[in-house]
Amino acid sequence: MTDTPDPRTLADVEEQELLDTVLPRFATSDDVVIGPGDDTALLRVRTGQSLATTDTMVLGRDWLDEWSTGADVGHKLVVQNVADIAAMGGRCTALLVTLVASPRTPLAWVADFTGGVEAAAREAGTVVVGGDLSSAPDGVRMVSITALGELDDVRPVLRSGARPGDLVAVHGTLGRAAAGLLLLERGTPEKAPDLVLAQRRPSTSYEQGPLAARAGATAMLDISDGLLRDGGRIARASGVRLEFDPALLAADIAALAVAVGADARDCVLAGGEEHSLLATFPPGSVPADWRVIGAAAHGTGVTVGGEVPSRSGWDHFGSAKSD
Amino acid sequence: MTDTPDPRTLADVEEQELLDTVLPRFATSDDVVIGPGDDTALLRVRTGQSLATTDTMVLGRDWLDEWSTGADVGHKLVVQNVADIAAMGGRCTALLVTLVASPRTPLAWVADFTGGVEAAAREAGTVVVGGDLSSAPDGVRMVSITALGELDDVRPVLRSGARPGDLVAVHGTLGRAAAGLLLLERGTPEKAPDLVLAQRRPSTSYEQGPLAARAGATAMLDISDGLLRDGGRIARASGVRLEFDPALLAADIAALAVAVGADARDCVLAGGEEHSLLATFPPGSVPADWRVIGAAAHGTGVTVGGEVPSRSGWDHFGSAKSD
Repeated sequence: MTDTPDPRTLADVEEQELLDTVLPRFATSDDVVIGPGDDTALLRVRTGQSLATTDTMVLGRDWLDEWSTGADVGHKLVVQNVADIAAMGGRCTALLVTLVASPRTPLAWVADFTGGVEAAAREAGTVVVGGDLSSAPDGVRMVSITALGELDDVRPVLRSGARPGDLVAVHGTLGRAAAGLLLLERGTPEKAPDLVLAQRRPSTSYEQGPLAARAGATAMLDISDGLLRDGGRIARASGVRLEFDPALLAADIAALAVAVGADARDCVLAGGEEHSLLATFPPGSVPADWRVIGAAAHGTGVTVGGEVPSRSGWDHFGSAKSD
Repeated sequence: MTDTPDPRTLADVEEQELLDTVLPRFATSDDVVIGPGDDTALLRVRTGQSLATTDTMVLGRDWLDEWSTGADVGHKLVVQNVADIAAMGGRCTALLVTLVASPRTPLAWVADFTGGVEAAAREAGTVVVGGDLSSAPDGVRMVSITALGELDDVRPVLRSGARPGDLVAVHGTLGRAAAGLLLLERGTPEKAPDLVLAQRRPSTSYEQGPLAARAGATAMLDISDGLLRDGGRIARASGVRLEFDPALLAADIAALAVAVGADARDCVLAGGEEHSLLATFPPGSVPADWRVIGAAAHGTGVTVGGEVPSRSGWDHFGSAKSD
């Protein structure tokens, strides 16, 4: 180790040498029979069922190197994936990590990314058991994780179980990651470093997923594309209308208004990448620490204060399209 | 359905509309408790253990649209991943499929790719249970699969179990995919359409993986980066030397020489993307349909006719580097 940054890029090392550097960093667990380095990993599955999900981040679309370090990207990628496991009521048992990058990618970035993945995996109580390294044309960098998990004595909580009369509740913050992104876009991150951190390194209370499942959650997901869009997914899958109560979101909006002004409402309603858990519960079964922000009713779609909102969040291909 | 090609691109459809088109194409199976469309999939795991692997293909590095259709790419991606499961002795139970593409990607390409994945999954006896769609900058397209599997009453066959005295055997062809690539590069695909097809749509006898495991294979992998490089991986992991016998490879080389001339030897020894299974067996236990092409001995690395070869196959980042 020296104080000068490693000047090498991926083109300067053999794939095997890189793997030899990266793989020993990853912890193992009792669930891992065979870890990274062979054709496949082999995991114990104690409950007879395995959850599986995958999520990808692309340089230039999901992050900019000017705004996020490799460790930030690794952290966020883990959170995105493990939040999906939590949103089924599950516990994450293993991750597969893919890096697709041009040969000019600095080894220092790869090491930083790997460190971020490793730290976030540890925080999530899970381990990296495999992955893939692929080269890409210049300028292209993309990272992807597949997360596996198990349900410990709970039934999976789908998006489709909400019923009219259920309460809509959220665990965690709303709109903070989107507000942080706005500050970065405006070039004024110093106005609220905590919001910028929420954008770079979102956090989810993973244990709230299984807890909500045990409490009787009828539908659940994590907010990745905005409260309205993700709420709309529950509404659509469940065949109900989700009615958000603006009075119950006013404090979220007010808290962000200091930093982002009139955009605070959009951040709370349409801001993605927050990864807080959104769920529906029968009345009387909302767990402590969850905040009721609305209710499910007969109908379709989502409303805010009885009105159908004009903007509903992030669509991957048709960005900023109204729908 | 019309006879004119769909002129639309990913930018012209909502993500949900795309998913609604794609998801119903995928078959299901008894192993699938929850399929695509929720936060995660949920799979039955009958044996208490799950195999997991992931592999990625990148436009411009792993395929060119001029040479491969979307269906070709989907097919190859499935084969790559399921071959890894087979090379552990396993049976593939489920796939997660990721598409990262620019909004300008033709919907027709996406449909073609999806069809290729679906058909190849069916051939492999497996199903798609989830995935991810992400947008990318213009010109970028990347597809990735995570394959899950199980070991049915066999122990996993690692790369590390070869012992001096074992025989080295292969199931399937050698060098054909590389020879097909050479013909495409030379602009003479018509010289051997069967080799070009082997490049576009490699095939693996997946059932030979479990069969080899039951026969007592001590080490196994599929040939993705070339016989010498992948053989070197077994040698390294097992602490042995793999000695290939040129007389036992002569027919493979001769068969390709008609189409690619003097490059036939390189294709057989260093050609990647073949996905045939390479394994070591104690003498007397090589299964029918497997061809002995060498033996394991005390030592390190690989030899061909007693000599250390000068070229050893495909390295993802340091392409064409000697080592």
